[in-house]
Amino acid sequence: MTGGYCMIMHYTVNRIPVGVLGASGYAGRELCSLIAGHPRFSLAFATANEQRGQSVRLNGQIVTFVASDDADLSSAALVFCALPHGASLPWVERAREAGAKVVDLSSDLRPGHGAPRVPYGMPELGAEARQAIRGATVVANPGCYPTSILLALVPLIRADLVRAEATIVANSASGVTGAGNSPKRELLFAEVAEDFRAYGVGNTHRHLTEMRATVAAFGSHADLVFTPHLLPVARGILSTITVPLTDPLGDAVAFYRDAYAGEPFIQVSDTPPSLRDVAHRNVVALSATMLAGTRQPTLLVTSAIDNLMKGASGQALQNANLMCGLDECTGLPE
Amino acid sequence: MTGGYCMIMHYTVNRIPVGVLGASGYAGRELCSLIAGHPRFSLAFATANEQRGQSVRLNGQIVTFVASDDADLSSAALVFCALPHGASLPWVERAREAGAKVVDLSSDLRPGHGAPRVPYGMPELGAEARQAIRGATVVANPGCYPTSILLALVPLIRADLVRAEATIVANSASGVTGAGNSPKRELLFAEVAEDFRAYGVGNTHRHLTEMRATVAAFGSHADLVFTPHLLPVARGILSTITVPLTDPLGDAVAFYRDAYAGEPFIQVSDTPPSLRDVAHRNVVALSATMLAGTRQPTLLVTSAIDNLMKGASGQALQNANLMCGLDECTGLPE
Amino acid sequence: MTGGYCMIMHYTVNRIPVGVLGASGYAGRELCSLIAGHPRFSLAFATANEQRGQSVRLNGQIVTFVASDDADLSSAALVFCALPHGASLPWVERAREAGAKVVDLSSDLRPGHGAPRVPYGMPELGAEARQAIRGATVVANPGCYPTSILLALVPLIRADLVRAEATIVANSASGVTGAGNSPKRELLFAEVAEDFRAYGVGNTHRHLTEMRATVAAFGSHADLVFTPHLLPVARGILSTITVPLTDPLGDAVAFYRDAYAGEPFIQVSDTPPSLRDVAHRNVVALSATMLAGTRQPTLLVTSAIDNLMKGASGQALQNANLMCGLDECTGLPE
Amino acid sequence: MTGGYCMIMHYTVNRIPVGVLGASGYAGRELCSLIAGHPRFSLAFATANEQRGQSVRLNGQIVTFVASDDADLSSAALVFCALPHGASLPWVERAREAGAKVVDLSSDLRPGHGAPRVPYGMPELGAEARQAIRGATVVANPGCYPTSILLALVPLIRADLVRAEATIVANSASGVTGAGNSPKRELLFAEVAEDFRAYGVGNTHRHLTEMRATVAAFGSHADLVFTPHLLPVARGILSTITVPLTDPLGDAVAFYRDAYAGEPFIQVSDTPPSLRDVAHRNVVALSATMLAGTRQPTLLVTSAIDNLMKGASGQALQNANLMCGLDECTGLPE
Repeated sequence: MTGGYCMIMHYTVNRIPVGVLGASGYAGRELCSLIAGHPRFSLAFATANEQRGQSVRLNGQIVTFVASDDADLSSAALVFCALPHGASLPWVERAREAGAKVVDLSSDLRPGHGAPRVPYGMPELGAEARQAIRGATVVANPGCYPTSILLALVPLIRADLVRAEATIVANSASGVTGAGNSPKRELLFAEVAEDFRAYGVGNTHRHLTEMRATVAAFGSHADLVFTPHLLPVARGILSTITVPLTDPLGDAVAFYRDAYAGEPFIQVSDTPPSLRDVAHRNVVALSATMLAGTRQPTLLVTSAIDNLMKGASGQALQNANLMCGLDECTGLPE
Repeated sequence: MTGGYCMIMHYTVNRIPVGVLGASGYAGRELCSLIAGHPRFSLAFATANEQRGQSVRLNGQIVTFVASDDADLSSAALVFCALPHGASLPWVERAREAGAKVVDLSSDLRPGHGAPRVPYGMPELGAEARQAIRGATVVANPGCYPTSILLALVPLIRADLVRAEATIVANSASGVTGAGNSPKRELLFAEVAEDFRAYGVGNTHRHLTEMRATVAAFGSHADLVFTPHLLPVARGILSTITVPLTDPLGDAVAFYRDAYAGEPFIQVSDTPPSLRDVAHRNVVALSATMLAGTRQPTLLVTSAIDNLMKGASGQALQNANLMCGLDECTGLPE
Repeated sequence: MTGGYCMIMHYTVNRIPVGVLGASGYAGRELCSLIAGHPRFSLAFATANEQRGQSVRLNGQIVTFVASDDADLSSAALVFCALPHGASLPWVERAREAGAKVVDLSSDLRPGHGAPRVPYGMPELGAEARQAIRGATVVANPGCYPTSILLALVPLIRADLVRAEATIVANSASGVTGAGNSPKRELLFAEVAEDFRAYGVGNTHRHLTEMRATVAAFGSHADLVFTPHLLPVARGILSTITVPLTDPLGDAVAFYRDAYAGEPFIQVSDTPPSLRDVAHRNVVALSATMLAGTRQPTLLVTSAIDNLMKGASGQALQNANLMCGLDECTGLPE
Repeated sequence: MTGGYCMIMHYTVNRIPVGVLGASGYAGRELCSLIAGHPRFSLAFATANEQRGQSVRLNGQIVTFVASDDADLSSAALVFCALPHGASLPWVERAREAGAKVVDLSSDLRPGHGAPRVPYGMPELGAEARQAIRGATVVANPGCYPTSILLALVPLIRADLVRAEATIVANSASGVTGAGNSPKRELLFAEVAEDFRAYGVGNTHRHLTEMRATVAAFGSHADLVFTPHLLPVARGILSTITVPLTDPLGDAVAFYRDAYAGEPFIQVSDTPPSLRDVAHRNVVALSATMLAGTRQPTLLVTSAIDNLMKGASGQALQNANLMCGLDECTGLPE
């Protein structure tokens, strides 16, 4: 019988043990779910200090949280570190000392944050970036907003299409899982439903650091304006990005299709993507169009991701696949 | 007894009869609700061809819809025309012929649309605009998006603060009542909930016409980029606007407080407004801040309105108050 | 000018000072909003220990919270006590000692709770109940669920229509404001949206006490089954109630219309009410129908309230109106 | 590489071609998605008259709709008929004539509907039911509400625990996908959000027929009261069921655990299930508790399903698996 056949297959392949530090948050749970469905990874441990001892069902698998100090780091070939920003670095080091590779989901090791440089885990930045991830022992997993914005900008910068002295304007809107699951009054249902608001206004959001550093690394000196917003949805990020160009793009959609030819997790479409298109999928959906009625050539790019998938846990697993010599797509819904 | 006393007061004042053409849409119903609570207007008729004969309870008052052709236009001193764009003009003329003043909520008569010029019903554009509305027999009620955007831009333009050759980027997000209540699959709950998307991308939205015409009338030649989005909320518009300036504004909030001193329906705050702040109120809530970390001085303005109130019916009533010689605030929740 | 005229009127009548203890919760804020719009009450103080010193805009009025210990209880002719269950009783006593009448929104003084008996603040239970409220110095404001259920049941009990040995089944669903605004993980947007669940199952909800006591007081010994549910909406309660009858009711809607003739805050309709019908209104909307295809005569009643209005603050104000000799409807949206 | 390895596996097994009639509705799309991820089925055709020629991406697979008349019914070994109630029967016959087995998702062939009797596709009703499905050429797939209610009731009836002359009260609440995706004003986001209402009150819902017939087939003559409600969520059904018992159940949860031992798609829990627990899974989540404070023993059962999975397409696939000799669980998320 097929069902049994499938199950047998799952147990006959050798599985690589991976651990999750900080497994009770939204990203951590998503990671455990993805690992539960991954054909080559198995979950060595999942830590959650506050909820230690508790069991949850994630993607058909019962996961019991342990305290971080009780996790045997050496039992994992690779550790996902999904701890809060600032708390991550010591655990990355401990995991390294225990011999595990690390994908760090915090911002601590990302470009521009001053820590010792490790590869930035955004394979679609190009062959060099992907190669660096493959060979890395530690990878800094990108922020959710930067994932949705940088993959829209980098092809333009690389093709020298962004006007000098330009101001790039990125407006993003995120579902509330992006703000974590610690109880805060402003995140209560009765506060968020039927509301919409900007936050981190005035270019004050932490994610600007890695965006500026990455944009600069690719040679652009454009001003970057970034304003995030809080949406009354659980998951998803939509970024709407205005880019002053040196020259009009004849076919903006074709430009992105060319730029990302062969990339399994980037989907370029003729019409603007919506959150619904990317929910529970590890993809960036992109579309672009020249703006009508402007004197200077200006491009509008829209970009959608699931903040918990390509914006966090899915991309982390994609990086882990590369670091473990597996096919990059293993266990990831396209 | 107070309750009785209040009711008596309502009947002893002379009321001005007003009619609503197109009363079954979201804006039309909101108008009927506002009129039901208005101390000086009474509802002469409310038309809705498809729903004629049906009665609904709006703000404690039972309203029975009649067919447009059955409405006695001459029974109203003022008619609100809330018919679809394109269908409005003949009814404006009929109402005028019957002797009624008209507030037209369609785009047909707004700036830039080529029809004979009538005053644009946005009193906060200044003393001249308000004076023109007071003396008008027909007023073009502004679009919802332009209301939220123009009131953010005009003070800057007037003060000559917008950089020449600038690109102003306005991103707006609207609740679904802005799309009307005709049954469409894309507006079903199961399609809109947990989703967010841009539409009218590439500067193709109808509201750009009146925004460009108004901005030009105040002397700006900036490029204007406008991208609307559909929010999973019932009502409200938030606009996030990036404006390149000639010089930094020392105190952006104070600038707007000065510009709108004495305006009852404009509320400037230190922190960015949210939809919740303006729901069911006839106000524009504004905040502004200079952007950090840009080489060129750039301002970020956020602006929130209730699309059915200050974005449509509330502003229409505000205009009607002026046209009828009443206090501008009568019957309007600030 | 009318606007000015209205304002003058507001200041020429004598206003009765009232205070709110526990003003920062959802019910407390709603009370402050209602008081701001009330033509005969003025807000003497609003307490909120955690948020003392903070100001909020409620219904156009700026309210600044003070600590409970800093409130001058003697400055109010009547005090609304919206403190948590269990914390209320000492403050009711303090307010009484300071000479103020009290409407207590907690469950501490409600029927069946063992405290000294005070009138139960549900005027629609009949002439006797209303008279008792009018003469009371302290009134126990009913719970939200009991308001929606008891007003459906009492007319049937009074008419001796409920079958002996019957089991009455009341299923209710409430918006999340009913659970308060203290930050709890289970009330976060990402947890509540797209979810629905029963809680307090097995007849364990606190509100059963006052329902059983009231039903018994009217002479019924039926078994009462009550199961509340949490809805992904901000406000509103819908109760669906199955009642075994002695005999079929010929016209169930007419029965309720008769029972509540002249009651301004009870609206009986031919079709089942929905939350939308009662939002922001101080009404109970009721409908009823005999069940088809059952061997024993059984009635289905549906009942909708706004949990913050008729389910809490609106009903509290209705009681305060009666206790202060005002028209019962003053300042309350029907 | 694992990814490639997986893909190879998918193509080396023999796949059974299945077709979907009525593929553009919510249930039809869910079916296509499930088939896209099924290791032993392949999609022969998907019909949608109105949307013929259009392509959609469902679970990573591009599906192009054809008109029903253009579908080659003989190309499928099994046809899922997801056409509207009333329109289904002729197509079931056509598919049978073309030699295909049929799972019919309409109500036309369900118990009590008068059509020629075919097995009722609810395998968990017991060994006999499951055996009948295995041998059937046509199966009537159960309604969503009956799935959530009957699986709660049948074990009690079978154990003779339901009191004679009892009234069983089933209250259910469903997400809006249960109402289909035809554009209707009452299903617009702005109408459904922040609302909740009963419909089909008075025992008038179509699903009562199959529930009564099934309950009677198991020997119960209890009165059945069923009231469905519309929830502001996309998917899921929660049923709250009150059952008068002959005797108290000592451990209600254990009773259900025993009754459904070995059933992969029934999950009995100590605490009441919520919609979130079952989203995108083909399970019925059940819990039960005796009611406190009643004179007569009464049980409260809560039951949650995803209306598009176990309530429609998932259960249809489960039946198809049985009819095709596959493991019952193949391709179904537990």
